[in-house]
Amino acid sequence: MNCFEDFRVKPGSKICLDKIDPSFKDCYNKRKEATPVIKELDARIRAQQYLMYAEQKHSLLICLQGRDAAGKDGTINHVLGAMNPQGCSVTSFKQPSKEEAAHDFLWRCHKVAPAQGHVAIYNRSHYEDVLVQRVHNMVPKSVWSERYEHINNFEKLLSDRGTLILKFFLHIDADEQLKRFKQRIDDPTRHWKISESDYIEAGYWEDYTSAFEDALNKCSTIYAPWFVIPANHKWFRNLAVASIVADTMEALKMAFPKPSVDIDEIKKKYHSLNKQDIQEGLAASPKRSK
Amino acid sequence: MNCFEDFRVKPGSKICLDKIDPSFKDCYNKRKEATPVIKELDARIRAQQYLMYAEQKHSLLICLQGRDAAGKDGTINHVLGAMNPQGCSVTSFKQPSKEEAAHDFLWRCHKVAPAQGHVAIYNRSHYEDVLVQRVHNMVPKSVWSERYEHINNFEKLLSDRGTLILKFFLHIDADEQLKRFKQRIDDPTRHWKISESDYIEAGYWEDYTSAFEDALNKCSTIYAPWFVIPANHKWFRNLAVASIVADTMEALKMAFPKPSVDIDEIKKKYHSLNKQDIQEGLAASPKRSK
Repeated sequence: MNCFEDFRVKPGSKICLDKIDPSFKDCYNKRKEATPVIKELDARIRAQQYLMYAEQKHSLLICLQGRDAAGKDGTINHVLGAMNPQGCSVTSFKQPSKEEAAHDFLWRCHKVAPAQGHVAIYNRSHYEDVLVQRVHNMVPKSVWSERYEHINNFEKLLSDRGTLILKFFLHIDADEQLKRFKQRIDDPTRHWKISESDYIEAGYWEDYTSAFEDALNKCSTIYAPWFVIPANHKWFRNLAVASIVADTMEALKMAFPKPSVDIDEIKKKYHSLNKQDIQEGLAASPKRSK
Repeated sequence: MNCFEDFRVKPGSKICLDKIDPSFKDCYNKRKEATPVIKELDARIRAQQYLMYAEQKHSLLICLQGRDAAGKDGTINHVLGAMNPQGCSVTSFKQPSKEEAAHDFLWRCHKVAPAQGHVAIYNRSHYEDVLVQRVHNMVPKSVWSERYEHINNFEKLLSDRGTLILKFFLHIDADEQLKRFKQRIDDPTRHWKISESDYIEAGYWEDYTSAFEDALNKCSTIYAPWFVIPANHKWFRNLAVASIVADTMEALKMAFPKPSVDIDEIKKKYHSLNKQDIQEGLAASPKRSK
């Protein structure tokens, strides 16, 4: 299985979500078989993140989208929790604040784009503005229909500056969603997470399907691909996302930067020193104040 | 061992760093003995972080300070890596940018203070302004000597709004520092991290000792305590920090918030629905567009 190719939305293609099996699990029968594979992928991601942080040339932007209960939080927690929190930020895009709503729709996303060497994860993203805003007629069609091009241009800007962009649509079906809603109702420690709007949004299932399909079809580019991840099985979802992240980071062929000092020089000068030498200021600059 | 009490700088006390053993390791002989204890602490931290995120009442600010090579990065990576990156941000305070330097010294720290429900980790912090700036005479004494009070006032402000503040000084001795510098020189994958300034700063050992002691003595308060963590043994450092974080978070006695909806009502209304009912809009609001 090559997750990158198998789940990528090819530019120019016409994805139809109903034709993609959300319960797909490749050759794995159950979670237990996937666990060691995921563990290995996590280690590879961690190593690549360290390299990225050291090299300071590339950055990584991961966008997570999906219906309610599709597993965005879980993906962050399990797969991306493998990352060192230093150099990795997560932003949840909720209803825009007054200040955010007073700007163009990309403003708040641009602000938290990853700096060189860093990873940024968007839990929901600028795509909300062609999803929920479209489904609920919060802006007229003339406005949201222009946004796909703005999004592609924005992502090109980031990509040209060295940002690797990976966008995951976590694909579940209605049965799985309903099952997860019911699990929440049955678990008192998760009652705080429940809002009636979950069920209301589910009633717009088909509208969301069309909106997701348009976003996937119009905005999966060579420089910022979309992936449709079969997500009915949480462990398979984790495996697929981790696999794509690990593979694409490794493809960057990052390397540790050259040291900023002459290591041989440093070695000659300091390696034989003991702590008294150093504390007595042998190593100190002329600016030494004492 | 009660790490909180044993390592806390009591308000009004006069800490003398030379009298604190940086190689202390309590009853543990080696890393292997501490590993399962740390694992358990990590799980407790993770559970508490989830509660904090759910409850949205408290927040947590962790400040890490220490000499070069004291293990700030390592502590973040190992102990705080236990946290879910969602709801947890790490900020490294380096040399101030032009914009930062054009503001008061607390401005850049305040900007990234944790929101309710969130954890913020400062890798170095506002204390740099009474450490490096003092040691290198970057501002006159009349300026840095006023800052302790500003710091206490700032931390009181955060604390009054529900922020739990924990400040860790990672305590190593000069031999350990030199050993770690030498390890870096001997490891090609870490050469990019080396700068000659590490050795130059080490030459100011005593000046830093005085500056750290003043910060610890003047700014360890009931609402924002400092801890001096024996850090020659990395695994003991991790254990001690994790233990204090877990204990103080649990002392907040956080609880899941009441659900925002009437769960019984939701149950009655939706629990028996199937996906067709929902998709046909039984659950939909009158605003349903289709």
